[in-house]
Amino acid sequence: MSEIDFINPEPPFFNDHDEVSDETFEVLKARCLKARELSYSPYSKFKVSCTILTEDGEFVDGANVENASYGAAICAERTAIVKAVVGGKRKFKVMAISGDTKSVITPCGICRQVIREFTHQKDLKLPIYLFNCDGSLFIKMYLKDLLPLSFGPEDLNAI
Amino acid sequence: MSEIDFINPEPPFFNDHDEVSDETFEVLKARCLKARELSYSPYSKFKVSCTILTEDGEFVDGANVENASYGAAICAERTAIVKAVVGGKRKFKVMAISGDTKSVITPCGICRQVIREFTHQKDLKLPIYLFNCDGSLFIKMYLKDLLPLSFGPEDLNAI
Amino acid sequence: MSEIDFINPEPPFFNDHDEVSDETFEVLKARCLKARELSYSPYSKFKVSCTILTEDGEFVDGANVENASYGAAICAERTAIVKAVVGGKRKFKVMAISGDTKSVITPCGICRQVIREFTHQKDLKLPIYLFNCDGSLFIKMYLKDLLPLSFGPEDLNAI
Amino acid sequence: MSEIDFINPEPPFFNDHDEVSDETFEVLKARCLKARELSYSPYSKFKVSCTILTEDGEFVDGANVENASYGAAICAERTAIVKAVVGGKRKFKVMAISGDTKSVITPCGICRQVIREFTHQKDLKLPIYLFNCDGSLFIKMYLKDLLPLSFGPEDLNAI
Ligand SMILES: [Zn+2]
Ligand SMILES: [Zn+2]
Ligand SMILES: [Zn+2]
Ligand SMILES: [Zn+2]
Repeated sequence: MSEIDFINPEPPFFNDHDEVSDETFEVLKARCLKARELSYSPYSKFKVSCTILTEDGEFVDGANVENASYGAAICAERTAIVKAVVGGKRKFKVMAISGDTKSVITPCGICRQVIREFTHQKDLKLPIYLFNCDGSLFIKMYLKDLLPLSFGPEDLNAI
Repeated sequence: MSEIDFINPEPPFFNDHDEVSDETFEVLKARCLKARELSYSPYSKFKVSCTILTEDGEFVDGANVENASYGAAICAERTAIVKAVVGGKRKFKVMAISGDTKSVITPCGICRQVIREFTHQKDLKLPIYLFNCDGSLFIKMYLKDLLPLSFGPEDLNAI
Repeated sequence: MSEIDFINPEPPFFNDHDEVSDETFEVLKARCLKARELSYSPYSKFKVSCTILTEDGEFVDGANVENASYGAAICAERTAIVKAVVGGKRKFKVMAISGDTKSVITPCGICRQVIREFTHQKDLKLPIYLFNCDGSLFIKMYLKDLLPLSFGPEDLNAI
Repeated sequence: MSEIDFINPEPPFFNDHDEVSDETFEVLKARCLKARELSYSPYSKFKVSCTILTEDGEFVDGANVENASYGAAICAERTAIVKAVVGGKRKFKVMAISGDTKSVITPCGICRQVIREFTHQKDLKLPIYLFNCDGSLFIKMYLKDLLPLSFGPEDLNAI
């Protein structure tokens, strides 16, 4: 995304990683980049990965899993999330995403919706770290800025 | 959504309907509210409707269509969009959405993604009109503010 | 599908069209083949169409509508179904499907599930007419044989 | 499913578990029943689980993960599959499924489609073990009988 200033970003872009130590940041980045190898994407040929750091310190890796019926494709973010959730981890500290692209990519709307379901942070400030293909570019965004005015569990209760 | 000031909204909220005449606005609202009756939602009991005004002046109504396998549900917005698209209308002037709720609702992430695919407006400024259950509340938003930094057709081309 | 004997089919394949007159059959075929032009499939380049004949004699055409996020794709069958349902038609007499292929294609599992939701026929014997690209091949199957032992609305009630 | 004779089943139903030893069968059953606890299903209140035994002997557990936007729900079977696939396991020896029901349940059409993608067995004879809520009922089916004449990877290649 050419519009991002990776050096001196302005909100909703950030380039700190204050949620985690430098060491954890490097582990997260390395795992996320490597997880792209796990992608099953014979149709789009577009490998994407996601690594979640859960609140209790576990890393969970995911990658996109496509299908001959395109609508049955499950993106990297959702793969990582369902792994975490059925692993008993529903609270995420940070999510990291990387695509096979020179610049960073953002999650699709379906994934933003699924991330939203498990965003427990006040004001939906779940940090999402976006890396490009080799990790040379990095930007941080919050879920709230990717899916403003989201439709979530509370809205169904409010019927 | 209690945070919206419907009388004196500030961006990303607006309460004009400058894209259409007063008369067209009333038709759009009336159709949208009425289209909720078309909903097939035996599982959520949550009726939602969507009416599209296409660039060439046609109205297209949709409502949510659910399934015993929850993941096969298709929301009102997507129902209206596929109707329009297979009707040969891929350019939308305005989309209107209404839910069975006291306040307005916003589209889910899946629908924002599908709306995005057919947003031809510069800077993704497709106007989306949000009505509450009886049309007594109204607010306008743009797609770009509902799905910032979206992942769209261009991103796949950029691989 | 090379395994089908189109001339002397054996169950679950049939080549009659006893549900409709010869004339209606020709209209259904012609509409279905033509509806492929409505497909929005820039990603798979695979055009599929579906035409429903509702119980009360209306034809409803659909085609597949894809998305940059592959998982948001909606197949031809589901496009036609949601059009029919929000048009107030929930009972289908016959569904016809055609793909851009030399032989016939069958619906994907997602679509079989959605067809199932609106199959009112006893023993789920909704007839599905399958045409190849130019209509020179035709075979009839029933929904029950495409989605045996389906998970439907009744199963949720039985919880 | 009242139509199944669990004692003396006839095809497409079987009640052997010839693919695995008695011991492995008991482990698979116990894991599958227990995995229902992992379900995130606040909307349907319908807990479903799936345990895969991969070709190289690993067990992978899944459960359904729902969403406020119903269409973003991911069933137990797909959760288990994407976990296995991104764990580097694309070949499954057996899949086991259990629901919160007195009788057994079968996978929905979406899941049958996703199972299909990773069915490497000749003639699509992937064995699927179906258990009821407490494991007192058991039946075996093959993928080929749950999704006959499936639309798979080969069909896209054949365009
Ligand atoms: Zn996604
Ligand atoms: Zn939606
Ligand atoms: Zn389909
Ligand atoms: Zn399923």
